Amino acid sequence: MNINQELSKLTLDLVNISSVSKDEKSIADSIAEALKKIGHLKITRVNNSIVAQTNFGNKQRVVIAGHIDTVPANNNFPGKINNSEVFGLGSVDMKSGIAVALKLASEITSSNYDVTYLFYESEEIETKFNGLELITKQQKDLLDCDFAILMEPTNGILEVGCQGSLRFEVSTSGKRSHSARWWNGENAIHKTNKILEILNNYKSREPEIDGHKFREGLQAVKVNGGIAGNVVPDSVTISINHRFAPDTSIDQATQNMKKLFKDFNFQLVDAANAAPTGLSNPLIKEFVSNIGKNVAPKFGWTDVARFANAGIPAINFGPGDPNLAHHPEEKVLISQINDVYESLKNWLTK
Amino acid sequence: MNINQELSKLTLDLVNISSVSKDEKSIADSIAEALKKIGHLKITRVNNSIVAQTNFGNKQRVVIAGHIDTVPANNNFPGKINNSEVFGLGSVDMKSGIAVALKLASEITSSNYDVTYLFYESEEIETKFNGLELITKQQKDLLDCDFAILMEPTNGILEVGCQGSLRFEVSTSGKRSHSARWWNGENAIHKTNKILEILNNYKSREPEIDGHKFREGLQAVKVNGGIAGNVVPDSVTISINHRFAPDTSIDQATQNMKKLFKDFNFQLVDAANAAPTGLSNPLIKEFVSNIGKNVAPKFGWTDVARFANAGIPAINFGPGDPNLAHHPEEKVLISQINDVYESLKNWLTK
Repeated sequence: MNINQELSKLTLDLVNISSVSKDEKSIADSIAEALKKIGHLKITRVNNSIVAQTNFGNKQRVVIAGHIDTVPANNNFPGKINNSEVFGLGSVDMKSGIAVALKLASEITSSNYDVTYLFYESEEIETKFNGLELITKQQKDLLDCDFAILMEPTNGILEVGCQGSLRFEVSTSGKRSHSARWWNGENAIHKTNKILEILNNYKSREPEIDGHKFREGLQAVKVNGGIAGNVVPDSVTISINHRFAPDTSIDQATQNMKKLFKDFNFQLVDAANAAPTGLSNPLIKEFVSNIGKNVAPKFGWTDVARFANAGIPAINFGPGDPNLAHHPEEKVLISQINDVYESLKNWLTK
Repeated sequence: MNINQELSKLTLDLVNISSVSKDEKSIADSIAEALKKIGHLKITRVNNSIVAQTNFGNKQRVVIAGHIDTVPANNNFPGKINNSEVFGLGSVDMKSGIAVALKLASEITSSNYDVTYLFYESEEIETKFNGLELITKQQKDLLDCDFAILMEPTNGILEVGCQGSLRFEVSTSGKRSHSARWWNGENAIHKTNKILEILNNYKSREPEIDGHKFREGLQAVKVNGGIAGNVVPDSVTISINHRFAPDTSIDQATQNMKKLFKDFNFQLVDAANAAPTGLSNPLIKEFVSNIGKNVAPKFGWTDVARFANAGIPAINFGPGDPNLAHHPEEKVLISQINDVYESLKNWLTK
């Protein structure tokens, strides 16, 4: 992998190094090898995550972070360049962002901030494997900084904070019987109409926070029930995903949901806190104003919440349309990759 | 296995020969071996089904039939005798009926009807394995008779005809999206409320046929949908089981259901015709009057429908509560086994 080529080709090279979560050794090796050649960086490896730090002697330090893993391929590996776009697995999420960070790491030899570039493993899977989580737990000093820029795809604009996510199951119970003598039973599937009524009547809350309108959500994501083709089922489980704005804690969100579904068995499955917008932090405010892009709330959950938990204000800024992440037609505009690169370079060296 | 012991012990012996569908060789061997010792029977084996025919020279012939397989064990194998009941897998469905038939075959050496005893394999699984179906297709002359008694559990009363069964799937479709940006999608689970509305508003038809009131049914038996915990699902399938009375054909029932669910994708999965009550047949009428038991419609589907398809009028009569069939607590009253035996013996030899 040659960092000294144009960003589109560097992105394609990164796409073509397979790095499905838990299988990031090759890409981590390539990144470490390339960065070690660069004199102004101090490289630390933690498992398959690579930390590269400048030491220009600035008072303030920013982390520029991106994950190097992808979800499994979906007929979109290897990638290709076609006119104005880079196609392929991870082109959006988030190897174009990694390409930008690598090029910044290589080319910026003096700047207004010291920079800690973080290329981390296993963001797409459970928290216990997440490279950022691992470093936060084991070598937190590697992340000492004033704020962080997370290069998750934002379509080239700035996205502040992120909504939290609650996953829970509600279930109905009935009485099993032979379906030929159904009057001896009580059909748990038929009873789910009351759950659907709640879902269909739900009105999304849209609180404005630091000038940005968030939008909560309540969506059934799975439904499962049934015993056999001739049995009235006695149990159905519906998995529901609730997205909540940064003014709400996990506890509050859980209480809200328990109240909403008070007539049903309720089982919390997992929960991830929201992240504040960070706009009360003067450095983030300055960054936003200097970059001069549109600012929107981040609806999806990202590792800015993990940074927030570690006490680090963070903001999302990266190339690529998040709606194309994890998509068979994943692709990113080359102009957007270049634009994000130029914006960050100008800000760092202005 | 010794046929010359009391019915309860013979039932227990049969229960204790494992004979889950497709694994009936042992029990078929035992039955064939025991019956071959009896001089007045002509034995024919078709795969793991045993046919035993008397040839007393009567003008009329009855088939007395029962299946020898069971569903898989459910903590109810081996069986036991406890006071007044035989417990265990198949005690109801239908080894107590098999015990009655074996004892009749052994002890009745002259009667008003010639009898063809049929002990057949694989009733509990797909039609293509069913021993009755196999003989009907390959050696139908073995089943030449005037009518048939099927010893499926009826709790010791007479049950006429059987309802038909239709299994079909209806599905909703939506548009997939990330659940954090749910407004880009269309939730197929949320849309199933319209299907549930139809199910919950369904009024069961209860036609009276030959003096017996049937009771149709419409029950969801399975529901399945969902992609992942963070995806608005674009498809949900609900499997529905419709039970219909003997005045309705499979075609009519299918048309009725297609009409009812006209707003949804509709996929027929399988269909089994209903069987008429048989009460227009003078021999069945005479049998019913002679046995002198309560008469009720059969709500569950049984192989009387398979007999009906082969042009053979048939009636259900056997020991055991059908609600305990396929049940971990499967058990049968010994008094009921004896009663069914005495009723059939008296009718055959009156």
